[in-house]
Amino acid sequence: MQLFYQRELPRGVNFLDPEESLHCVKVLRKKVGDLIHVTDGQGILYYAKIISATVKKCEFEIRRKEEEKKRNYYVHIAIAPTKNMNRLEWFVEKATEVGIDEISLLKTLNAERTAIKTDRLKKKAISAMKQSLKFNLPLINELIDFNDFLDTQGENRCIAYVDNTDTENLSLHVSQGTNIILIGPEGDFGSEEIKIAKRKGWLPVSLGRNRLRTETAGLIACHFVHVFNN
Amino acid sequence: MQLFYQRELPRGVNFLDPEESLHCVKVLRKKVGDLIHVTDGQGILYYAKIISATVKKCEFEIRRKEEEKKRNYYVHIAIAPTKNMNRLEWFVEKATEVGIDEISLLKTLNAERTAIKTDRLKKKAISAMKQSLKFNLPLINELIDFNDFLDTQGENRCIAYVDNTDTENLSLHVSQGTNIILIGPEGDFGSEEIKIAKRKGWLPVSLGRNRLRTETAGLIACHFVHVFNN
Repeated sequence: MQLFYQRELPRGVNFLDPEESLHCVKVLRKKVGDLIHVTDGQGILYYAKIISATVKKCEFEIRRKEEEKKRNYYVHIAIAPTKNMNRLEWFVEKATEVGIDEISLLKTLNAERTAIKTDRLKKKAISAMKQSLKFNLPLINELIDFNDFLDTQGENRCIAYVDNTDTENLSLHVSQGTNIILIGPEGDFGSEEIKIAKRKGWLPVSLGRNRLRTETAGLIACHFVHVFNN
Repeated sequence: MQLFYQRELPRGVNFLDPEESLHCVKVLRKKVGDLIHVTDGQGILYYAKIISATVKKCEFEIRRKEEEKKRNYYVHIAIAPTKNMNRLEWFVEKATEVGIDEISLLKTLNAERTAIKTDRLKKKAISAMKQSLKFNLPLINELIDFNDFLDTQGENRCIAYVDNTDTENLSLHVSQGTNIILIGPEGDFGSEEIKIAKRKGWLPVSLGRNRLRTETAGLIACHFVHVFNN
């Protein structure tokens, strides 16, 4: 199965954007009358029939739609961007495969980056969603100050950091509803940051005995939420 | 903490190989008398003192050693190499971080690769071990025919594949002792391969509802074994 992505589809858009059209018509040689699968990235798979096929605009009509079964939990990973963008892109790809609802990028004390372009990350997410035949595109938020982010609300709000001896494993705290896990930069969160987070009600957790790179920690945290909700 | 790797150390070798020596003496500017941490990749951390420091050969004497606590389970992932070597290298890096004892490379029916150089993979593992301050270097085996590999013995032997509706989740079968999980290529295992594996006592398992890329499936399987043994 080949999956196409088209946003705004629920609002009546019934053609693929130029990039997807090119792929559909030129690369895959789809023709008028062919059936294709399109998702809006909002949890719906559309079965559609091509009614006009040019390289720049592939139009279709919807024949049937199918809604993805909704989970009773939400996974939101807030992560400090890595210095090496490949590693962050890798995180976005893998988390999308494993299943993630929202990604926030944190500007922290030991930040590797103070600016970031989210365009490439969004593209990575789209391509991973299509590849793994998922119909939910994660929301990727722009870089935000750590302190501002701490006001975000959710049922389970955790901060994962490295040098913690008295914390419990994340698996013990995963819950239904919204799980938000903060993942620090390579130099970890600053002690002041950890203090403020705790004061604001974020629970310190560990991800196991391993010393993980930022992007690995993000993915492992994401997997924990799925495993202990299933 | 900076960790150096030196194999054969338990057999009396008391100097770093040229690459590690260069890094130690030239890049990090370590001098005679400085203390360094060296691991043999066999579970032992050595506290050592430099006694001669040239760029090609950094000699040391061991002052103290510390053994890593042994787990009561063993993780062995046997995976079909991906077409894109980066993805396989990524798997080796991440699995080493998360913790893996042995990696086998499978030549399967839908194989992407029929030959593979393991040198780069071994280097990736060394660098990930050092980075994540682990003292166990995973064993990386040369490419082996799927059918031959099936004779490998262990307490928990599973085959993970995609189009399986009647399989139980891997998490239910993780055990103490040796866990060996087979991970198929992009086109999945062939039906004949699955049949033979089942006949030879390998248990079909799923890794969850997601359709994962080969390298992601390998890492997730590895994480499952840790999570459900802890």
